[in-house]
Amino acid sequence: MEKKTLLTHCSDAPGLISKITNICYKHQLNIVHNNEFVDNASGHFFMRTELQGYFNDDTLLADLDQALPAGTKRKLVSSDRKRIVILVTKEAHCLGDILMKNFDGSLDVEIAAVVGNYDTLKDLTEKFGIPYHCVSHVDLSREQHEAKMLEVIDQYQADYLVLAKYMRVLTPGFVEKYHHKIINIHHSFLPAFIGAKPYQQAFDRGVKIIGATAHFVTNDLDEGPIIKQDVIPVDHNFSAQDMAQAGRDVEKNVLSKALNKVVNDHVFVYGNKTVIL
Amino acid sequence: MEKKTLLTHCSDAPGLISKITNICYKHQLNIVHNNEFVDNASGHFFMRTELQGYFNDDTLLADLDQALPAGTKRKLVSSDRKRIVILVTKEAHCLGDILMKNFDGSLDVEIAAVVGNYDTLKDLTEKFGIPYHCVSHVDLSREQHEAKMLEVIDQYQADYLVLAKYMRVLTPGFVEKYHHKIINIHHSFLPAFIGAKPYQQAFDRGVKIIGATAHFVTNDLDEGPIIKQDVIPVDHNFSAQDMAQAGRDVEKNVLSKALNKVVNDHVFVYGNKTVIL
Amino acid sequence: MEKKTLLTHCSDAPGLISKITNICYKHQLNIVHNNEFVDNASGHFFMRTELQGYFNDDTLLADLDQALPAGTKRKLVSSDRKRIVILVTKEAHCLGDILMKNFDGSLDVEIAAVVGNYDTLKDLTEKFGIPYHCVSHVDLSREQHEAKMLEVIDQYQADYLVLAKYMRVLTPGFVEKYHHKIINIHHSFLPAFIGAKPYQQAFDRGVKIIGATAHFVTNDLDEGPIIKQDVIPVDHNFSAQDMAQAGRDVEKNVLSKALNKVVNDHVFVYGNKTVIL
Amino acid sequence: MEKKTLLTHCSDAPGLISKITNICYKHQLNIVHNNEFVDNASGHFFMRTELQGYFNDDTLLADLDQALPAGTKRKLVSSDRKRIVILVTKEAHCLGDILMKNFDGSLDVEIAAVVGNYDTLKDLTEKFGIPYHCVSHVDLSREQHEAKMLEVIDQYQADYLVLAKYMRVLTPGFVEKYHHKIINIHHSFLPAFIGAKPYQQAFDRGVKIIGATAHFVTNDLDEGPIIKQDVIPVDHNFSAQDMAQAGRDVEKNVLSKALNKVVNDHVFVYGNKTVIL
Repeated sequence: MEKKTLLTHCSDAPGLISKITNICYKHQLNIVHNNEFVDNASGHFFMRTELQGYFNDDTLLADLDQALPAGTKRKLVSSDRKRIVILVTKEAHCLGDILMKNFDGSLDVEIAAVVGNYDTLKDLTEKFGIPYHCVSHVDLSREQHEAKMLEVIDQYQADYLVLAKYMRVLTPGFVEKYHHKIINIHHSFLPAFIGAKPYQQAFDRGVKIIGATAHFVTNDLDEGPIIKQDVIPVDHNFSAQDMAQAGRDVEKNVLSKALNKVVNDHVFVYGNKTVIL
Repeated sequence: MEKKTLLTHCSDAPGLISKITNICYKHQLNIVHNNEFVDNASGHFFMRTELQGYFNDDTLLADLDQALPAGTKRKLVSSDRKRIVILVTKEAHCLGDILMKNFDGSLDVEIAAVVGNYDTLKDLTEKFGIPYHCVSHVDLSREQHEAKMLEVIDQYQADYLVLAKYMRVLTPGFVEKYHHKIINIHHSFLPAFIGAKPYQQAFDRGVKIIGATAHFVTNDLDEGPIIKQDVIPVDHNFSAQDMAQAGRDVEKNVLSKALNKVVNDHVFVYGNKTVIL
Repeated sequence: MEKKTLLTHCSDAPGLISKITNICYKHQLNIVHNNEFVDNASGHFFMRTELQGYFNDDTLLADLDQALPAGTKRKLVSSDRKRIVILVTKEAHCLGDILMKNFDGSLDVEIAAVVGNYDTLKDLTEKFGIPYHCVSHVDLSREQHEAKMLEVIDQYQADYLVLAKYMRVLTPGFVEKYHHKIINIHHSFLPAFIGAKPYQQAFDRGVKIIGATAHFVTNDLDEGPIIKQDVIPVDHNFSAQDMAQAGRDVEKNVLSKALNKVVNDHVFVYGNKTVIL
Repeated sequence: MEKKTLLTHCSDAPGLISKITNICYKHQLNIVHNNEFVDNASGHFFMRTELQGYFNDDTLLADLDQALPAGTKRKLVSSDRKRIVILVTKEAHCLGDILMKNFDGSLDVEIAAVVGNYDTLKDLTEKFGIPYHCVSHVDLSREQHEAKMLEVIDQYQADYLVLAKYMRVLTPGFVEKYHHKIINIHHSFLPAFIGAKPYQQAFDRGVKIIGATAHFVTNDLDEGPIIKQDVIPVDHNFSAQDMAQAGRDVEKNVLSKALNKVVNDHVFVYGNKTVIL
C-alpha cells in the first residue's frame, strides 16, 4: 500500500468533488484526508486529496483527465521526502532551526546542501553532516555570482530552494529557473517594510507589532505569493536591534511552518496568492 | 433557489464522500462549501455540505439513507436564523456583546428573550427592544427556581439557550431538557480552574495567561464539549480583580465566536468533544 | 486623600528618578505605581508616577521645576474622568463597543456626545442617553462641513475626539485645533495598506494576517503616532468582505484598548511615536 | 565602567524608590533601567535597577542596608554570564533550541554540561563541543540515581539547572539542594494537565488550545512558581501525537524565554509566584 497526494486545480463546475472522489473510489483508493476550496469570485476550484492504496498512476490520471474540464492542472505526488538546498549569508538562526528540526524529525526533508556567500555558517552546517559550499560574491558581478551559485545548486536537483536569510536579491534569470520553487523569509510583516532594513523601518515608524513573512520568490522584490506570516508585540523599549533579536524566533518559526506546508504538498500557487489545503 | 446545510455523521467507510456528493449532484444541488473529517482513531466520518438549489428534502434524505451505513445521523438544515434565549445574572459584558453584534449584523440570530435571576440587565436588554424576564431565585429551591425559569423559557421554543454569565448551576433535569442546546461561557481556560472564582484561583496560582472557554453544558460541571477557547497574557501586576476585568473581552469574544459556529451549523458534538467543520 | 498622576518628560540626566521621588516623598505623597523609560538613543527620559495623598499642586510643581532640567515637560493630572466626543459615519461596531464598555464600567470616560455625518447611528447612541448630532457633509465643501462639525464639537470641550470609523479625512486646520487629541482607528496593520479600502488591498495582496491600528491623527494620512495594534489570522477562504467582517472585532478591541491607555494618562507622544508607561 | 544589577525585595514603605535611587546617585552610579512593583495586597516591594559605573559593592550594600527596612533582601549581581547544566532524557527539541540559541548568541549563558539518563542526545550535545554525561537510571533506586547525577552535576557549580524535557521526578533532597535554581518545562498549560502524558489528557478532554509552562521546580509536582507560559490553537484534526509534535515549538520557545529572564536577573520568586521586572 502506498500513500500519494492528488492535487487538482481547475475552473469550478458542478459535480467536481463527486467526479474526482468517484474515480478514486473506482480505483479502490481510500481517501485519508480531503480538502477543497472554491474561489467563488474567480470561479477556481482547488482540491487536495490524500490517498492510500495500490496506484496505477497512468490510468488514474487518464480517468481524471477525461472527467475534468479542459485546462485542469492535476498532479499525483508521491510521499517521498522533498529535497531542498538552503541558501544563506551570515545569520545562523533560520538555518539552525531547519537543521535542528530536520535532526529531531519535526521537518521531514532531505537537506541536500547549504550554499552561502560567506563561510560563516560552514561549521554549523557540517556539524550536521551536510555539505556546505561557499560561493563568494566578492569581485563578481551579480550575474557571474549567480552563475557560480547555480553551478553548485543545479547539481543537487532540488525540489525547492530555501532562502534562510540569504541577503542578496536574485536576478530574473535565477528566479525563472526555479519558478515557484524558491521560498524566502522576509523579516517584516509584508507588505509593510518592503526592502532593506525592515526592523530599522519598523523602529522608525514606531509600530507596536513586528512580523515575518514566508513567500515564494518572484521578480518583484518581496511581492511574491505569501505562504505564512506571524507577528510578535513590541513596544517603546525595543531598539531596532532589539526588534531584530526578538524577530529571530518569528522568522524561523514562520519559515519552518511555511516549508512544512510546501514540502507536504499543501500549497497551491494561484495568481499572486496561495491556497493552502 | 434555497440554501441548506447537510450534516452527516457516520462510521467511516470507503466511498462516503463520493456517495454523498453524487447524490447532491444527481439532485442538481450545487456544493457551495464542503468540509469533511475522518477521526481515524475511532473510525467516525463527519461531513458538512453547504448546498444551493431547489430542494426536495424527502427524496434527498431518502437517497442518502439508502446509500449511507446504518446508524448514520444526517440532518438537512435550512438557512433560517436560529432562535436563542439568553440567561444572565448581573454582568453586562457578554449579553451586551451579543446584543450589539446582533444589532450590527455580526451575529445573525433571533434573540427571542433574555431571562435573568436579577433585574440588573433589564434596562440594557430593553434598549434593544427584546423582552426581559426576571425570575428571582430568592426563597426558592433550585428545582422551584428552574421550574419557573423553564415556564418562561419554554414558551419561546428556542433552538439554543445561551448562558451569558448565568452564575447558577443547572440541574440534570434542566440540562436533559435542552440536551446539547445550552452553551455556556466559563471564565477560565478549562480544564484549569473548574468551579467557582476561577480568576481568584488563577491569581493564587500565579499563572501568566488567563482564558475563557465556551462549551455545551452537560451534567458534569464545566466538563461539557468545548467549542472555543482563547487566552490573554497577564503578569504580576494583575490582581484577581484586574484579571476579571481583563478577562471580560476574552469571555465575550469566545462566547460570540462559539455562538456563531453553532448557529451556523458548523459544530458536531461527538462524545465529549466537538468537531467544527 | 486624592489620587493624581505626575507625567515627566525631559532630557536624560543623572539622578532624575531620585530627584523626582525625593520631592514626592518630601510632599508626603505615596507612590502607588511608578514607571520610567529612558530612550538611550535620543537621550529622553519619561516617567509616570501615580501618587496618593494631599496635594499642593503649586508647590509640588515648583519644586519639580527647580530640580529638573530646563525644558522639562511635567504635568500633574487629576483622576477625573476624561470627556470624549465620538465621531462616526455609518458603521456601528466601534461606537457600540465604546458605548457598551462605558455602560458596563470597562471604559471609564464621559461620552459627551456622538457626532456623525449620517444619522445611521443616532438610534444606537440615544439608546444610551447620549446626545447625537448629525452634521451632513452633503453639498458642503470639506471646510464648510468641518466648520459645522467644529461648531457642534467645540461646545463639549472634550479632552479627546475619538474617530470610531469616521470615514472622512480631516483638514490640517481641524487636526491642529485638537493637536494630539484625536484618536483614530485604521482598519489595517499600518504602515501596510494606508488609505482607502485596506481590506480590499489586503485581499488583493493575499496576506495571511490582517490587523487594525489606533493612532493619533496628524496631517499625514495614517502616519500619526501609533498607540496600539493587533492582528488576526486570515486565509484563502476570506473574501475582502469576510476580512472586513472579521476585522470588526480587532478594530473595536484595538480602539478601546488604546483609548483606555490614553484616558488613563499612560501615553506620551514623542516625535512620531508613543511611549506607553 | 562596570554594569551590575541591584535586586531589592522588602516590605513596602514610604520613600523606598527615593532612598534606593538616592544611594545610587550618591555612589555616582547611572541607572540604565529601573523597574519596580508593589504588591499592594501583601505589602511587598520589588525593584530591579540596572546600574553602570564604578562599584564599591561593600559600601553600596552597607548604605542600602542602613536605609532599607529590616528583613530586606538585596543582591548586587554582576553581569557575568550564568553557568547552566542541562538535564535531558531523549527528546531533542528543547536541548537543541538552547544549544542553537547559545551558538547564535540569542541566549547568553555558559552551558557547562548536559546530563541525561540515556545517551540519545550525546551526539547532538557534542556537536557543539559541550560535555555530555549519561547517567543511566537502570537498576538504580531513585535515590541512587540522583546521587550519581549530583556527583556529576555538582562539579560544575552551576547557577541554574535546566530540565529540558528531563522526564523523571526529582526527590525533595535534590530539589532542596538547588532551591529555586531548577527550571523545568512542563508540556501543558498549567495547572491544566498536571502529571504524566499531558497531550493525551488534552486530547481526551477535547481542548481547543494547548500550551507549555516554564516554572521553578519545588517539591509539589508541577506546582512551582510559574515563569512563562504560552499556547497554540489546536482542533479536532489533532491526534494526541499531533499535539505533541505541534507542542514542541511552544515548549522550546517558552523554556528559552523563561531562561533568558532568569539568567538576566529579571525574576523574583515570591511565595509560589514570580515577579518579573
